[in-house]
Amino acid sequence: MNLGIIVYMLGWIMKVEAVLLLVPMVTAAIYGEREGFCYLAVAVVCGILGLILSRKKPRNQVFYAREGFVTVSLGWLVLSFFGCMPFMLSGEIPRFVDAMYEIVSGFTTTGSSIVPKVEELSKATLIWRSFSHWIGGMGVLVFILAVLPMAGDHDMHIMRAESPGPSVGKLVPKIRVTAKLLYTIYFVMTVVMIVLLLIGKMPLFDSLCMSFGAAGTGGFSCRNAGQADYTTYQQAVIAVFMLLFGVNFSVYYLIVDRRWKDAFRCEELRGYLVIVAAAVVMIAVNVHRMFPSWGRSFHEAFFQVSSIITTTGYATVDFDKWPEFSKCILLILMFIGACAGSTGGGMKVSRVMMAFKEAKKEIAAVVHPRSVKVLKFEGKPLGHDMLRSLNAFIILYFFIFFLSVLLVSLDNYDFMTTFSAVASNLNNIGPGMSAVGPMSNFSALSDLSKTVLIFDMLAGRLELFPVMVLLSPGTWKRTWTVFGKRGRRIGISH
Amino acid sequence: MNLGIIVYMLGWIMKVEAVLLLVPMVTAAIYGEREGFCYLAVAVVCGILGLILSRKKPRNQVFYAREGFVTVSLGWLVLSFFGCMPFMLSGEIPRFVDAMYEIVSGFTTTGSSIVPKVEELSKATLIWRSFSHWIGGMGVLVFILAVLPMAGDHDMHIMRAESPGPSVGKLVPKIRVTAKLLYTIYFVMTVVMIVLLLIGKMPLFDSLCMSFGAAGTGGFSCRNAGQADYTTYQQAVIAVFMLLFGVNFSVYYLIVDRRWKDAFRCEELRGYLVIVAAAVVMIAVNVHRMFPSWGRSFHEAFFQVSSIITTTGYATVDFDKWPEFSKCILLILMFIGACAGSTGGGMKVSRVMMAFKEAKKEIAAVVHPRSVKVLKFEGKPLGHDMLRSLNAFIILYFFIFFLSVLLVSLDNYDFMTTFSAVASNLNNIGPGMSAVGPMSNFSALSDLSKTVLIFDMLAGRLELFPVMVLLSPGTWKRTWTVFGKRGRRIGISH
Repeated sequence: MNLGIIVYMLGWIMKVEAVLLLVPMVTAAIYGEREGFCYLAVAVVCGILGLILSRKKPRNQVFYAREGFVTVSLGWLVLSFFGCMPFMLSGEIPRFVDAMYEIVSGFTTTGSSIVPKVEELSKATLIWRSFSHWIGGMGVLVFILAVLPMAGDHDMHIMRAESPGPSVGKLVPKIRVTAKLLYTIYFVMTVVMIVLLLIGKMPLFDSLCMSFGAAGTGGFSCRNAGQADYTTYQQAVIAVFMLLFGVNFSVYYLIVDRRWKDAFRCEELRGYLVIVAAAVVMIAVNVHRMFPSWGRSFHEAFFQVSSIITTTGYATVDFDKWPEFSKCILLILMFIGACAGSTGGGMKVSRVMMAFKEAKKEIAAVVHPRSVKVLKFEGKPLGHDMLRSLNAFIILYFFIFFLSVLLVSLDNYDFMTTFSAVASNLNNIGPGMSAVGPMSNFSALSDLSKTVLIFDMLAGRLELFPVMVLLSPGTWKRTWTVFGKRGRRIGISH
Repeated sequence: MNLGIIVYMLGWIMKVEAVLLLVPMVTAAIYGEREGFCYLAVAVVCGILGLILSRKKPRNQVFYAREGFVTVSLGWLVLSFFGCMPFMLSGEIPRFVDAMYEIVSGFTTTGSSIVPKVEELSKATLIWRSFSHWIGGMGVLVFILAVLPMAGDHDMHIMRAESPGPSVGKLVPKIRVTAKLLYTIYFVMTVVMIVLLLIGKMPLFDSLCMSFGAAGTGGFSCRNAGQADYTTYQQAVIAVFMLLFGVNFSVYYLIVDRRWKDAFRCEELRGYLVIVAAAVVMIAVNVHRMFPSWGRSFHEAFFQVSSIITTTGYATVDFDKWPEFSKCILLILMFIGACAGSTGGGMKVSRVMMAFKEAKKEIAAVVHPRSVKVLKFEGKPLGHDMLRSLNAFIILYFFIFFLSVLLVSLDNYDFMTTFSAVASNLNNIGPGMSAVGPMSNFSALSDLSKTVLIFDMLAGRLELFPVMVLLSPGTWKRTWTVFGKRGRRIGISH
């Protein structure tokens, strides 16, 4: 393990975070809030530490996948650690577990909150919560890749560990150019959304918070009532943009590149739209008696479906009061999640589609034992390695899921609460059902449950492997051996 | 598709069923119940039809995996169809969906019932319900293989489709001898259990019902109070035998063969015992305040754990009233299930262990990219084909699970009811939680839900693939093409 390069990257993350903390500082200055000083203090400490750690580039630049995975998961921990400090310093969220839960929920674009009444928070804290969604959505390390000139092939490993989806979404051969393109599309779409909300007469502060949240598919609100008090136009803008931010960004790249045909040939995009349409129709029919008109029922169904499948977590109604059928559809959407290469969470539409094809092929193999059929996705054959990692993902996913449900069940809430809390956090959605429903919050859970859910949010956002690699004893065994100069041969340990 | 041989096998199934119906007939004769005539009528019709269908062996004996899968799933449908007729004729369960649900629950060794008060049923019907567990546990086609001299290699395909577990449990090279050995062990163990219960002063009728249910890991009771009214000794015998019937039968073969060392080296057996021990301790600690002593708490925990992991479904207490943590442990045990090659259901301990190893290897591959590690289970390397079918199984499993939950949720029960009803039926356990808890029954569900659950029980017992192959359009496309003599080339369709 090359610890030098990992520490160097962590230093860079701290420096970037110090700069990002300018956003709440400026907000505090505008609103004249004294909480700004807490943000300033953390930014200074974080910046200085970052400068020390990254003062010189290590000579050994060897960087494998494991270094990439460890860098990303440690990086997210460091980011969250400093990110939650202002909450504690300002006294707005005094306990460490709570503050950590809140900021991890922000960076991982989950949006579950332990704050009962968000309107009591300072504007600086409100904007920092929402801004953390925007940072976490595309990934802080992808951002560093876009701005930091680095030689060699580490970029690929970092991109692979931080970007959502089963394969790396390289738009162009160079990773650095890809990262820049992604951030440009992301930035432009966010600005368009802010403008459209301003046109709809939403206050600038709300427009910023809503857009940061929708872009990162986060879900923190800046109003106690969530999104229920916004106008129909404002809700519609939010719903459409949530859906757009859940699309694979390579589709946008193709559109910008004027390759319309290729863009709409995207198998995942079509699967995503079919699922959304089916879910909206089924829910709208199921709940239509609860609303004055069919139009309203479709509007509410669309908003909720768009919010849940993209794993954003905004809510205009208390869908916990909906019939079980609609609730089950939403629960299943939580697991499916958005497209790979978007800012959304969940298992990803492409993984679900690939898994489905895999199972179908296995049945066909019994029916036609001599047929030779190659599994394809997006027109390309699915390699053995890809399938292997897909299957390992699914297994790990359900393993972590069931273990988390078991641990959270110690709190003795009803099953829907326990199940949906884990589903919501592992898939980075935000609200669950029952005691953690859209009009409730996560503050009543025990510290053990919150810690489990913090782990789930990070595991979900980084797609399990980086976190599992970080926790795997094998990752560290060799490092200590190398330190101890015991000279164990590389690559053959256990 | 070789329809001739399939019809021939179905005929044999009917003949065997006609003979098996003797058991309730004799019971009715002893107790002087007029319901016996209903069983007689069905036996006669079933026998005659069977004789007609199997009157001569078809000349074309070509028999592939798909014929095996179709024979087994159609066979189970035929078995259930005739098996439920006496319920309807006697008027004890007048509606077809209910009667079918009850008998499928019997044959698949599920044990979920739609009968609120079982003591109101005739003795003939009570024994037929329990005896169906015994038949379904080891499989009716495996029985036919043991008694019917058949040439060629169809045996293998049938065994593969009907026996639980990821690989065929061949004890000896010859399938027929294996089938005989399995049934001998099964028979002897059942008799030992009956004797032990009789020694404990349980009435003969109860001893038979309890032993048939435990041997097949079924779960139908012959008392309204389930197993709560039996003595501690009787409960202990039942609990221990449930656990024993959940063990891979090849272990018993090794013991009979005096290969003790090999028997206890069985990786799945050790995994199974570790899971049981861990679950018992965790639950006993969690519920100990609800019982007068630690001994009682361990006794109840052991009975319930043994019942659920082996997917039997007997209950001595209303575990639906236990804390959520214990309920979640039981829910997870439902999914794990018993050992492969036992009479139990669920995903099977070996599948869970193999999946776990697969995921672990994928993480190790990131940490040590150059290490070459071969996945092994029970000392043998896990082949590519085995892993492929394991993964397809897991994917299909969760797909069927979530789809079923969605359909059952239309009944608008609470989430625990819906979730546990599907979990219980897909894994062939019996009771669920909440509205379908151990002291309730499944009668209140809608016909749609019952139909979905009938499908789940069959899919679960036959381990998904046979049922999916039966439903796959590709299975039948070629048959019709061959019939139409369109001469499509074999093995290259779609």
